[in-house]
Parts: sequence; structure tokens; C-alpha cells
Amino acid sequence: MDFEAFFKGELEGLHEEGRYRIFADLERQRGNFPRATRYTDNGQQDVTVWCSNDYLGMGQNAEVIAAMKNAIDHCGAGAGGTRNISGTNHYHVLLERELADLHGKESALIFTSGYISNWATLGTLGQKIPGLIIFSDALNHASMIEGIRYSKCERVIWKHNDVKDLEAKLTAADPKAPKLIAFESVYSMDGDIAPIKEICDLADKYGAMTYLDEVHAVGMYGAHGGGIAEREGLMDRLTVIEGTLGKAFGVMGGYITGSTALCDFVRSFASGFIFTTALPPALAAGAVASIRHLKSSQLERFAHQERVRRLRSMLDARGIPHMPNPSHIVPVMVGDAAKCKWISDLLLDNFGIYVQPINYPTVPKKTERLRITPTPVHSDGDMEHLVGALHQLWSRCALARAVA
Amino acid sequence: MDFEAFFKGELEGLHEEGRYRIFADLERQRGNFPRATRYTDNGQQDVTVWCSNDYLGMGQNAEVIAAMKNAIDHCGAGAGGTRNISGTNHYHVLLERELADLHGKESALIFTSGYISNWATLGTLGQKIPGLIIFSDALNHASMIEGIRYSKCERVIWKHNDVKDLEAKLTAADPKAPKLIAFESVYSMDGDIAPIKEICDLADKYGAMTYLDEVHAVGMYGAHGGGIAEREGLMDRLTVIEGTLGKAFGVMGGYITGSTALCDFVRSFASGFIFTTALPPALAAGAVASIRHLKSSQLERFAHQERVRRLRSMLDARGIPHMPNPSHIVPVMVGDAAKCKWISDLLLDNFGIYVQPINYPTVPKKTERLRITPTPVHSDGDMEHLVGALHQLWSRCALARAVA
Repeated sequence: MDFEAFFKGELEGLHEEGRYRIFADLERQRGNFPRATRYTDNGQQDVTVWCSNDYLGMGQNAEVIAAMKNAIDHCGAGAGGTRNISGTNHYHVLLERELADLHGKESALIFTSGYISNWATLGTLGQKIPGLIIFSDALNHASMIEGIRYSKCERVIWKHNDVKDLEAKLTAADPKAPKLIAFESVYSMDGDIAPIKEICDLADKYGAMTYLDEVHAVGMYGAHGGGIAEREGLMDRLTVIEGTLGKAFGVMGGYITGSTALCDFVRSFASGFIFTTALPPALAAGAVASIRHLKSSQLERFAHQERVRRLRSMLDARGIPHMPNPSHIVPVMVGDAAKCKWISDLLLDNFGIYVQPINYPTVPKKTERLRITPTPVHSDGDMEHLVGALHQLWSRCALARAVA
Repeated sequence: MDFEAFFKGELEGLHEEGRYRIFADLERQRGNFPRATRYTDNGQQDVTVWCSNDYLGMGQNAEVIAAMKNAIDHCGAGAGGTRNISGTNHYHVLLERELADLHGKESALIFTSGYISNWATLGTLGQKIPGLIIFSDALNHASMIEGIRYSKCERVIWKHNDVKDLEAKLTAADPKAPKLIAFESVYSMDGDIAPIKEICDLADKYGAMTYLDEVHAVGMYGAHGGGIAEREGLMDRLTVIEGTLGKAFGVMGGYITGSTALCDFVRSFASGFIFTTALPPALAAGAVASIRHLKSSQLERFAHQERVRRLRSMLDARGIPHMPNPSHIVPVMVGDAAKCKWISDLLLDNFGIYVQPINYPTVPKKTERLRITPTPVHSDGDMEHLVGALHQLWSRCALARAVA
């Protein structure tokens, strides 16, 4: 077989479908976020980033920066080993305590990424608990789907955020089988929020564990940044709350929180936890600083929510259609793959506005969009610039306006 | 089902088998490696780390430290997104160029860990190339096994480092089927080295791709730290060379290098690459500094090899049995799980020497060992202390001595 020709052919297919990804080569400017320097073949360009998952700008927070540099001065660069073989650093221990406290759980376990935390935890639970059935929301993240698939346990997909469908499927399953319901709080692409209480009620009724992915909510919701479950007073009803250190907390890494026995079980059996180099001490130290800051400060959360409301009202005033939802994610709907890519390119090249187009298969065809994430540090001027540019391009593209 | 009782029961099983892991809570001391502070319930203790995978002490290197702090000052804490959605930083681009150059390949692709680089690459190749058969060395790392398992492609396990068995299995397979041979250069637990040339010869003969994991070799072997394949002049014969930034390079992250089309293919299709937050700019910057340093400096490699020889000769002088191998890994053989754990505990508590016991299932029963990794910064005094302590414990445990 000519492997090179095979790879090239597959890539050609992506080009033809308009799905080939070109990464924007950026250099974030500390202290100047959301500004970044974009590197191109022709030189450099200043851009404003409108699609970052550093939702609160904590990647630029002075306490986080200082904590990271201090940990580097104190301990050096990497962890130097797996958690079991010389790689557990005292900052990991402090971080796990901080996370358990954040979610009101007995224990926490950190992973190298949110992806791995979902994959390894669901994979291990599904593989090791005899007869477990995982009930998975239809729009769960790739990492959860891969974890469930890896486990080879029985899985039942229920309609997105539809508790009636979930109950129908729980009823249809063997009453004696152990069960786990896996879902997210804020869904990344539509920004909608799960009915957590109703799902927990069903879990109680059918004796199921609950696994909640809060990666798009931790830091941003709840009085201490514990996520939607904290805001709704539901944290104690969830068996596992999973989160990330790489979005609102501004660093990198993932985690689960739950009972001591559950975390210890995953710690002891999950290949993706055991056989990998631990997070560098500096990342753990930065995450601790970020979590502590957001536990006590409401400023970032209030400013974030105000900026989201402001952007939505400015889009409304110009008739730029965006999907309504109760979260901080503002999906500006284009509904055409080629136009979505074209608008994104023009925004970047002509206006210095960087927002990645979101096309199939990440979202269904005809729902192509610009997924905009305003942060507390996007100014009124930034927003006027963005909305003015969209207004111009909407006219040039002859795209439908939203009806007021 | 009582889930808590289930988890506790499984953990109890580990305790009974002597396989329950307790992590040493350490704080590495920058500038003072291999010294670390160990946190215990009773306070703190200074220890010497003898089982780190920071094989060359590059996690303490001044250029690496400076590059990381500089990147934090320049760009902030995290990457702020996936590689596709705002998370590609210019340091990632520089790092991928540096890695491609290191291995003499057209291209490189970085991942959040070496585990993910193996899992995602082998998983994607096995899943996407129709009819691919992966020929996997029997002792391949968990991340490779999981990736192959994930792909659901046909897999053939060949006897560890046995080219006759590999050829027999290649011969037995469908001549028309596309094939990939996956193996490591230095195997972590025994420290033995694969016959890379012979394997490449077979790959040529049977039209197979080759996938070489060099995580325990990059930085340490070859004139520029390109690994065993560089040392043997074989880099151009391998389809994929995979490596880590978290061991000899002292930071964190994993990578593959290969043709532009292959790297672009994995970049475009691997779930574990696409749907995860990118490495923080500081980690990429630190890795670039580390790789560049080890490309031009031989000092660390020479000192490393000298230290390994010295430790082996000191062990020989005291009759402490260690597995002979051509690498930098010194497995001191105990051959009994309980004694291995007991010696490790005594070394730590009574001598301030930290070396994690390696028991089943990481190694076969009756081959339990202390896996010792001397670095360039372990002094003669450190070695005398270690070997003296082992000498005492060998007598107390009535363990067999090696025959000179």
C-alpha cells in the first residue's frame, strides 16, 4: 500500500468538503488580552481574540502568573515522573484538596487534561463495574463518547437534555443493572444548560450514579465558581463532578471530584491516569491560585455576565442572528459552511478580528456558526468593532437578519 | 448496586495483593536536584530522588527555566483553547519545527502527553487505514496497547525484540494487507534496546510502516539527542518517531514526527489531538529551550553515561544484583513483592533515599525490582550512600547477592 498517497487522498477529501483546518498561529500578549499577535507568511498582525476558552481572562491574572513563576523557581520545569514514580508534587496534593473543597466532595483527582479525565474515568467505571450501563446524553463531548466506547460497557444514548427520553430509557433497562448517567452542564456549541435537578431525581429513582461534566461552567457559575451545580445547590446530588483547569481557570489539566473511594478507585485502575507524566508543578500552582481567586472574587463572574448581555443586545440592535441560551456562549448563526469560513477569513484579514468558524461535523450542517466568547476584558470598543464588522459582512454576504 | 461498597471492595483487593499504591508527596528543589522535600503526616524530610524520569536533570536547567518564565511573562498561563480554536501559540509552531529537525523528518505534531501521542496516533492510523494490521511488540507501553485496542484494527503481538517471531508473523499475514510495526527503542522496565535495523529491514521486505516510541531515549542518545535511531543512523528508515517532552527534556507533552502528509492526517482526524486544550505556551517554550540545548551539548549525555557505569560498578563491588542492559536504566532485582516494598520503605524512612518499588503487574511476578535512574547530578557521595544502604538492607533481608 502507498501510505503517503492514502494520507494525501484523505486530506484532499477534507479540502473538497471545506473541512480542512488551518490553525491561526497566535502569540497571546500577556496583560493585553484579548489582543494577540498573529504570525502569517507575510509578517505579523495584531488581532483581537473572540473565540478563546480562557473565558474570564484568568490566563493573564497576576496571581496566577506569579504562582506559576514561583513554582518554577521553587521546583523547576516538569514533574519528572508519573504520579506513582516520583512525579507527585506537593502542589498536586494542594490542588486536589482545593478542587474537592470547590465542589464539596471528599476527594479529587487531577489528570493531564479534561479529555483524559473524561476518557479515563468513564472508561474505567464502564470497564470495571460488572454490567454497568452508561446513559449518555446525545451531545456529550468526544472525550466522554470515547471513554464509554473504550469501556465496552453497554451504552444507551438519550435525546439531548430530554428527561422524558432519559426516563423512558432507564425504565426499559434491566432494573438490577448498575447504571450511570453521563451529561454536561453547559454544552459548548449551543450554550444550553442541562436540567440537572431533574436528572438527579431520575438517578435517585433508578439507583443510578451521576457524572456531570462542568468544563464550560467551572469558575464562571456559582458563588465560588463551582459551576452550574453549585449555583443550583445540587453539588451534593452528583456522584462525580468533572472539570477542567484549561478554560475559565486559565491553565491546563482536568479533574474529577467525588467520594474518596471513587477517586481512589479511578486513581488505582485508570491506565490514562497511571501511565503518564504528571502535570508540571507550575501548572498545579497556577491552577490553585486561579481557583482560590475565583472562590472569593465575584468581580470576574459579574463582569463576564454583563459583557455577554451587552454583546447580545448590540447584536440584536443590528439584527445579527444569535442562538438564545442561558450561558456565556454566543453562537452567531451563519447556516452555510462556505460563507461561515469566508466571513471568518474576512474578519481576520480585514478587521483583525479572530473568531474560528465552526462547521460540520462539530455542529450539524446548516447550523454553521461563529462561536463568540466575550470575556470580562473585551471593551465596549472591542464589541462595537466586532458588531460593526459583522454588520458590514452580513450585508456583503446577503445573509438573513434576525427578526426583532 | 452499592457503588461505594464496590469501590472499597476493589481497593481492599489491591491492599491484600500488596498492589495498593501510595504516592510519595514530594517537592522538588530547583537547583538542588536530585534533592526533594518529602511531605509526611509527621512533617517534612529531605530525600534524594533515585527514580525520576527527568533523566538528565533538564527540568532544572537554567535555559529551560528562563524560557518558561519568559513565555509566561510574554503570553500568560494557558493556551486558552484547542489547537484549532485560538489555542495554537507561536511557541507550538517553533516546537514542532524543532522536533521535525531533531528527527530529520518533514513534520512534527505535539500532543498533551506522550500517552496521548501514542494512543491518538496508533488509534487513528488503525481506525482509518482500511485493513491495517498492527504488529505490536509484546512489551509495548500501555498507551500503545490502548491506542491499538481503540482502533479496533487487527493486531498481531510478536515476541519482545524477537525479529524471527516478527518475520514469522509478517509472513503469515495477508501479503496485500497494509501493515504497521509498532515498537519502542529503550524499554522502560528492563532497559533493553530493540534491534531497530533488523525491524526496518523486515518492514522494507514486507512493505510495512514503522512506528518507533523513543520516549526513554530522546535527549539521551545520538549526537543531537535524537534517540537510539539517531545513534544508529536509522532515523530516515522509520515512518514515525514518537517521543516525549516529559522525561529527558524535563517538561511535559508528547509528539510524533514523520512525513508532512502523515502528521497532517493525524492532526486532522485524531480525536485526542483535536478536542483538547493545547499545551501552555510556557511548556512549549521550555521544551524548545531543552531540545536546542541538548542538540548542541554533549556534556549531559556523557556525564549521564559515566554516572550509569559508575553506579553499576559500585553495585557489582557489593554484589547487589542488577539486570544487565545497554541503557541508562538500572533495575536492581529483588524478586519478591513484599521485600521490594519493604526495602523501598526502609530506604525512604531510614536513609532518605526515594526509589519506588516496581511490582506486578508493571513487571512479572518474581522480577520485582527497584528501578534506579542515575542522572548527571547524582554525585559520588549520593551513590555511596545509596549502595551502602542497599548493602545493609540486602544483609538484613537475607537477599541473594550477585555472583561476580
